[in-house]
Amino acid sequence: MQIAEPLLKAIEELSKLPGVGRKTAQRLALFILKSSEEDVNKLVNSILELKTKLHYCSKCYNLAVEDLCEICQNPKRDQSLLCVVEEASDVIAIEKTNEFNGIYHVIGGILSPLSGIGPEDLKIKELVKRFENETINEVILALNADTEGETTSLYLARLIKPLVSRVTRIARGLPIGGDLEFADEATIGRAMLNRNLL
Amino acid sequence: MQIAEPLLKAIEELSKLPGVGRKTAQRLALFILKSSEEDVNKLVNSILELKTKLHYCSKCYNLAVEDLCEICQNPKRDQSLLCVVEEASDVIAIEKTNEFNGIYHVIGGILSPLSGIGPEDLKIKELVKRFENETINEVILALNADTEGETTSLYLARLIKPLVSRVTRIARGLPIGGDLEFADEATIGRAMLNRNLL
Repeated sequence: MQIAEPLLKAIEELSKLPGVGRKTAQRLALFILKSSEEDVNKLVNSILELKTKLHYCSKCYNLAVEDLCEICQNPKRDQSLLCVVEEASDVIAIEKTNEFNGIYHVIGGILSPLSGIGPEDLKIKELVKRFENETINEVILALNADTEGETTSLYLARLIKPLVSRVTRIARGLPIGGDLEFADEATIGRAMLNRNLL
Repeated sequence: MQIAEPLLKAIEELSKLPGVGRKTAQRLALFILKSSEEDVNKLVNSILELKTKLHYCSKCYNLAVEDLCEICQNPKRDQSLLCVVEEASDVIAIEKTNEFNGIYHVIGGILSPLSGIGPEDLKIKELVKRFENETINEVILALNADTEGETTSLYLARLIKPLVSRVTRIARGLPIGGDLEFADEATIGRAMLNRNLL
């Protein structure tokens, strides 16, 4: 097999990206090869700037360009409503809904004794410390709805309840557009239990 | 919605890649953000080198680092067996089989009157010219098995037949692992017609 070495190298590097196999990597490499120099430079610069321009917000550990992220800096956001999430990608997911106008705290992972991740590996100490300096009326726990997310939510709730008047968790139930017939029992059970008055 | 600008820009650039939507682009961007500086530099350099180090072989129009591609340079390859393909990616596909030890000619596209692509837009003149200087015993047409590929094969066959003793086309038939029940009629018909003596 004789394939030009720069192409092989690009395929190898691109196939390290998540969800990109060798076939996709080859397609990407050949696409880049055909792109204009300007487009390739734009792509490369945007990748480099991810590493050079972004770091973690010193207050909430969301992604930030300056010391504080744009959300922490924004005076229009409700500083008394704090949403706890696992990763910066969860902040993006919630921001996209345009339903939330509070602030965040990114703990940077999930409690997982099996993987050896304990409270000290997450930004939990930093979360607790925020209650000393900030006036927070409600903490919304918005972790994943799997076992580890539930465990972490319960752990955080126990820790935070003495410090804040209201600790809530985002609802579990049928996803919008979801078909009752194809939902699992745990979801239907929870949806029944958490039914809302109309 | 408040998302850090470098992240938005990277998502935008990455989502220009083929088969990459905004969700995948976001996943790639966050993965890159978490990667080590060394890994990101390796990725970026491999992308840049695609554009700076690779160009087209002056003989066969395959991808090449030097003036001639590695295949044209290789004295162990059978220089009398020429395989005509559409794109450089087809060279890679055939090289991966390790079944072919001849040389290539990449025409760089397919005849398509509807898209306004005629013989003068492809490297067909260059293909014909090769018969003047090279001793070629057989030309294998290895274009796609769709209508445009068939049309181009027939066009090339008519053009080349006076110049070379043997013009062949790669076989059509059931793909390996293919189920007769689920194959289309055209494929089965061709497989019957081109049956081999055992």
